[in-house]
Amino acid sequence: MTITLVGFDADDTLWHSESHFVVTEERFQALVRPWSEPGDTAAHLLAQERKNLEVFGYGVKGFTLSMVESALELSDNTIPQAAIAEIIGWGKEMMRHPVDLLPGALDVVVEVSTQYQTVLITKGDLFHQESKVAESGLADYFDRVEILTEKTPEQYRRVLGRCGGAHPDSFVMIGNSMRSDVLPVVDMGGVGIHIPHEHLWGHEKVDEPQESERWLRIDSLVELPAMLAELDSRTSLSS
Amino acid sequence: MTITLVGFDADDTLWHSESHFVVTEERFQALVRPWSEPGDTAAHLLAQERKNLEVFGYGVKGFTLSMVESALELSDNTIPQAAIAEIIGWGKEMMRHPVDLLPGALDVVVEVSTQYQTVLITKGDLFHQESKVAESGLADYFDRVEILTEKTPEQYRRVLGRCGGAHPDSFVMIGNSMRSDVLPVVDMGGVGIHIPHEHLWGHEKVDEPQESERWLRIDSLVELPAMLAELDSRTSLSS
Repeated sequence: MTITLVGFDADDTLWHSESHFVVTEERFQALVRPWSEPGDTAAHLLAQERKNLEVFGYGVKGFTLSMVESALELSDNTIPQAAIAEIIGWGKEMMRHPVDLLPGALDVVVEVSTQYQTVLITKGDLFHQESKVAESGLADYFDRVEILTEKTPEQYRRVLGRCGGAHPDSFVMIGNSMRSDVLPVVDMGGVGIHIPHEHLWGHEKVDEPQESERWLRIDSLVELPAMLAELDSRTSLSS
Repeated sequence: MTITLVGFDADDTLWHSESHFVVTEERFQALVRPWSEPGDTAAHLLAQERKNLEVFGYGVKGFTLSMVESALELSDNTIPQAAIAEIIGWGKEMMRHPVDLLPGALDVVVEVSTQYQTVLITKGDLFHQESKVAESGLADYFDRVEILTEKTPEQYRRVLGRCGGAHPDSFVMIGNSMRSDVLPVVDMGGVGIHIPHEHLWGHEKVDEPQESERWLRIDSLVELPAMLAELDSRTSLSS
């Protein structure tokens, strides 16, 4: 294939994100421990988040509101009011958390950006994602930054349109979520490269199709330049 | 001037928005009435929102979190827990509220879009704004939709770049906020048309400069096509 456009996911592909949710969830489980076992708390909160996704969308603010609702329900409205203020304080901490780049992120993005047109494609809260992109120091290496509400094949098609009409079969997307970064890209005719991350939010978990020429897996970002070179040298790609 | 690009603000320019905040604030003032006078409550909530803007950005989710914090503070953590759940319920109602177009919005957008390149430029929550744009039925009449975190001269300049590099002095922006829709556009060399709306959020209030060739006021959207025609016929524009 001839690669013309390389897309990068951001959260848990270029910088840590889910680990901040995991730490906060642990605090949340401890906070409501008087009313609920940690396993039940985790299930209740995930159900609450999923229900709220269609009202609030992705991101820390919706997560914070979900925690407050979950705490009220699990405690049958008996949790002390000060605990609610504490939960909102955790949300603010998450919003303000400095960006921690994943190992190799800067070097890899710099290297790839010298060879291909690049686009950062992330989903979630506009305000938070823009802040993180700005703070990451990576923004200048991308030709475009696209913040989406959901990563569907249709949304990817539109991004390609905005990237000068790049053709799907010359597009490679890199990310940690099979559900958001790999499968919809394969669906619209591109290639997805999956880099698993230690933490994956329950909502992003999917059954995995068999590995194919259309999607590949590497263990770390630092393997990416070699993988792109190999893909670029392949003469054809079956669909 | 020769107009090539017309920008429309959305909230309280094409559809109602602030009135939903006003209604919710009235409910909030009633809810915390046992602990605080309505005037003090309004001042406390506005201060809380402003403080939270830099952490949460604009939008209903941040507003909801601000109400919860304000309720806890004003009641010194004694407000019943069920009231917190009620506040979050109001936030959900606001997120789900159907889009009510302002009088003439559809006709005016259709008419203007047949004559000029058009762009919808709104700020705030990506998820909520995208939902409203989709539901409004107006999306197809705009060449582009731009959802920004803040409306600064620099952000407007970037929007013009993404609109095929339109020149500022051929750009006219229409909106209900002097602070966000008119002054930054005048600042970057364009023309702003102000259409006041009954409700204006305290944070958007600014001292008004004298009316000039660079900014004009009309009373209603339905006057817009005639105003654009008049602007288009002016031979020159002083700066």
